[in-house]
Amino acid sequence: MLNNIQIILVGITHPGNIGAAARAMKTMGISQMRLVQPKLFPNVEATARASGADDILANAQVFDTLEDSLKDCHLVFGTSTRLRHLTWPTLAPKACAEKSLKFGGKVAIIFGREQSGLTNEELELCHFLVQISTNPTFSSLNVASAVQILAYELHESFIKLNHSGEIVALENPPASAEMMGHFYQHLEQTLIDIEFLDPDKPKHLMRRLHRLFNKIQPIDSEVNILRGILTAAQKAKTPPPSPLPMGGGNVHPSGGD
Amino acid sequence: MLNNIQIILVGITHPGNIGAAARAMKTMGISQMRLVQPKLFPNVEATARASGADDILANAQVFDTLEDSLKDCHLVFGTSTRLRHLTWPTLAPKACAEKSLKFGGKVAIIFGREQSGLTNEELELCHFLVQISTNPTFSSLNVASAVQILAYELHESFIKLNHSGEIVALENPPASAEMMGHFYQHLEQTLIDIEFLDPDKPKHLMRRLHRLFNKIQPIDSEVNILRGILTAAQKAKTPPPSPLPMGGGNVHPSGGD
Repeated sequence: MLNNIQIILVGITHPGNIGAAARAMKTMGISQMRLVQPKLFPNVEATARASGADDILANAQVFDTLEDSLKDCHLVFGTSTRLRHLTWPTLAPKACAEKSLKFGGKVAIIFGREQSGLTNEELELCHFLVQISTNPTFSSLNVASAVQILAYELHESFIKLNHSGEIVALENPPASAEMMGHFYQHLEQTLIDIEFLDPDKPKHLMRRLHRLFNKIQPIDSEVNILRGILTAAQKAKTPPPSPLPMGGGNVHPSGGD
Repeated sequence: MLNNIQIILVGITHPGNIGAAARAMKTMGISQMRLVQPKLFPNVEATARASGADDILANAQVFDTLEDSLKDCHLVFGTSTRLRHLTWPTLAPKACAEKSLKFGGKVAIIFGREQSGLTNEELELCHFLVQISTNPTFSSLNVASAVQILAYELHESFIKLNHSGEIVALENPPASAEMMGHFYQHLEQTLIDIEFLDPDKPKHLMRRLHRLFNKIQPIDSEVNILRGILTAAQKAKTPPPSPLPMGGGNVHPSGGD
């Protein structure tokens, strides 16, 4: 459903782009806008470029961090025109739109800064990367134009689904971004506790784990099971009551082979 | 092929929209822009919003009339967000893009004024109407955003065709808009000559005939045959050498029954 879609704009510096994005959304029947650290908002230039979509701006929610803006979202897409070196699961805009509309819960589609897009850390919060194909020699797509393309594909999918009646409300939607955030914190701490992860350089491994678990899209009860395992692992690591002498032999816990 | 595509902007009043359209085109690999009676062009605001697509603006051709801008085009689309009362053959953006790219000759895609779009007279010059579906309660799509949507669909089709190798150069492309313009003038004059058409109110009937012949998309040799018929009809109307008395009986040329 179109009213499940949250358009999230991160670090926009030109308020005109916020207004143009609001207009782009409204022409396609999308109304939920969230702004993460906009440079200037509200702003007269945003209102001018919204050109009648003032209600979208008036209802836009402003957040300090992307994480905060995603808390109630269960399916998260990050958009990009650049081909990323990450092997993140990637969809075209049309596939993103179809997936979003068939989904039962709240969906976030994130658009990054005018100059630099989204950081790799921000992309780690996403289940999928949405790649808008562009001219390889000039991929400088305006952010409001990117919103327009996604909004257009969402509206096209909406019309098609309305005709086919294919919308399915999921009984068990994937866990929310907030719940997954807590899970990843728990996972990282556990991996440090069990000395699997170097606490000074956790990035690369955590990114791969994010990708892995986001691909699973676990539901709430599955996240609870996983966190139960993590807690058990943390407890297991607690030093045993009778300490071994320091600098002892290279004890290997696994059985022979 | 993308370099067959002409993006034609009619009567744009805000030069920023021309620049934004140029940027939208270039991100999707489309470079041919034509402007019909732009209010301000060239203009600093157009250049600013082009944001690096200056070459598109520098190469844009400016025309006094839409007819002039279409002379070398063989397939012509007019865009609209409004549902027209005309029963013109109508395509979605995606279908327009597919048709355009599989076509062998020059293609024009026309975008109208910010406030009022294209007139019915301008739509008569088109083979197809392209309808961008929008929110019924807020269809105010920015003109550069409309260009972005079509350019995006063209680029998506281009990628798909490049993979499938389906591009077919037509041996006999439909007649050019210039040739069809002469044909319609000839047709209208002939219909007046043979007293089929009221010369004071030709509009309604001519519109229906435009639609009819544009649907046929005749090739050059077919247009020549049609014009041969028109010339024959005009000659046939020339008063016979022995004039009948004025106000004579109600002579009916058709045979019995």
